[in-house]
Amino acid sequence: MALQTNVAFIGLGIMGLPMAGHLLAAGCSLTVHSRTKAKADPLLARGARWAVTPAEAARHAEVVFICVPDTPDVQQVVMDGILPAAAAGDVVPGQIVVDHSTISPSATRNMAAVLAGHGIQFLDAPVSGGDSGARNATLSIMVGGDESSFEKIRPLLKAMGKTLTWCGPSGAGQLTKLVNQILVSVTNLAVCEALTFARENELDLQKTLAAVSGGAAGSWQLANLGPRMVDGDFAPGFMIKLQQKDLRLALEAAKDRGLDLAALSLVHRLFATAIDDHRENQGTQALFAVVEKAAKRR
Amino acid sequence: MALQTNVAFIGLGIMGLPMAGHLLAAGCSLTVHSRTKAKADPLLARGARWAVTPAEAARHAEVVFICVPDTPDVQQVVMDGILPAAAAGDVVPGQIVVDHSTISPSATRNMAAVLAGHGIQFLDAPVSGGDSGARNATLSIMVGGDESSFEKIRPLLKAMGKTLTWCGPSGAGQLTKLVNQILVSVTNLAVCEALTFARENELDLQKTLAAVSGGAAGSWQLANLGPRMVDGDFAPGFMIKLQQKDLRLALEAAKDRGLDLAALSLVHRLFATAIDDHRENQGTQALFAVVEKAAKRR
Repeated sequence: MALQTNVAFIGLGIMGLPMAGHLLAAGCSLTVHSRTKAKADPLLARGARWAVTPAEAARHAEVVFICVPDTPDVQQVVMDGILPAAAAGDVVPGQIVVDHSTISPSATRNMAAVLAGHGIQFLDAPVSGGDSGARNATLSIMVGGDESSFEKIRPLLKAMGKTLTWCGPSGAGQLTKLVNQILVSVTNLAVCEALTFARENELDLQKTLAAVSGGAAGSWQLANLGPRMVDGDFAPGFMIKLQQKDLRLALEAAKDRGLDLAALSLVHRLFATAIDDHRENQGTQALFAVVEKAAKRR
Repeated sequence: MALQTNVAFIGLGIMGLPMAGHLLAAGCSLTVHSRTKAKADPLLARGARWAVTPAEAARHAEVVFICVPDTPDVQQVVMDGILPAAAAGDVVPGQIVVDHSTISPSATRNMAAVLAGHGIQFLDAPVSGGDSGARNATLSIMVGGDESSFEKIRPLLKAMGKTLTWCGPSGAGQLTKLVNQILVSVTNLAVCEALTFARENELDLQKTLAAVSGGAAGSWQLANLGPRMVDGDFAPGFMIKLQQKDLRLALEAAKDRGLDLAALSLVHRLFATAIDDHRENQGTQALFAVVEKAAKRR
């Protein structure tokens, strides 16, 4: 697919805004929609068109990108916007809808099946790499759904991300993202418990980090969040409320398969405590404060 | 301290044998003792002297290295060997004893206090990096105890390790090693749960590893143990029974401080199940089989 394509981008938050900007910079003809119109202003100033509804944004687009917070938000865009338009014959034939949100894998499969009935390919394409990855176009994009549609839009995805992986059929992108989040959160917990142990045993935490970071104990979480935990710097980064949403999705998907993952459940409970402690807008490294308190209370 | 020093090495297992060999190669005059004399043969062939008891090994040594399995083994060497010899005025004045074993921090402090009464400095100096680190002299050595004694023996440690860290007073080396083991084992658990989730959701595990290893989910455990879990290759590596010994030490040291670390307790219970399943001599990546079974049973 050429980069000079009519595309729509729905959802212009911390992630969506820079991602849509990369598509514009790459030469796409871009129509945008967001709940808050002011968020679109920087893109409109660069030549993007505004659409007052998701349905209107989708109408002339060969590819529709969605980047919204949660499952019901995607369902609203798809079921209340794109689907009625498609049913009325009011979208480009063979349209591809690309969902960059992190949402339920089973809801994803359901929407993909419904849209397929109208000749629309729905690809789940959640991302990792955070807001800096979105700004620098270095995101990892994990894609599920029709492989040839993925190949078709590869040049567009390449404008936004560095590592593009086709993970399997519909839902496989979401499931892979949840695998990522299980790793991220339980490894974070490892760092929290290790530093709690270190601090309560009066070790020098800087020296401790230096001694253990280079070997078999090493991780991205330790290297990046460990020093912030030691400094008590809980600024986000990746906010606890977003991490917790992803862990809820992971727990639901695990339950769908009859799986009980004990460490995942544990870290979900600890993040729930963090939210009770009004830490929802802090970075995930603030889990350290919760773990330290819980370890001493028991 | 010059490398041409009289040293003793007690305990010639998978770790101790190559470590002692590096001291010999560096120019030390080496006396060795081990429970099984045959293990010393390669060193004796290269000019090391045999001592029939730990006390005899220690007698003429300026520095005595110990590398044995567990707390009681070190206590036996120190309390039944070195201490009586020291009390009889039968060791080199100002002797330094370096314990490379991973053992109890509180037992370490007790032995250090007793030996200090006889003018002997006891340094705890547990290592990480495994048998390959021992063979290649790339170990991380985490040292607790008198700092000037650590500086004095630095050239000797440098012959065996790459990263030398003075962690603090007596016991701090052991505590830092336990921090390392908490990180290693809980991060391992993160990988086990993530891959269980992936497999039960019928993801392609190779693709999944490729998609998630490079970012915020990445760790040494994921990169090194993940592929072996996927292949069902449970050959050691680091044996489960040794990992479990270290986790027991970590739990005891946490309890000494009134700390209850939930993820550490969880992974300790899972390794106990692994041992019940006769996996004690498998590598720590075999935790995957236990986690997968437990997740499906609940």
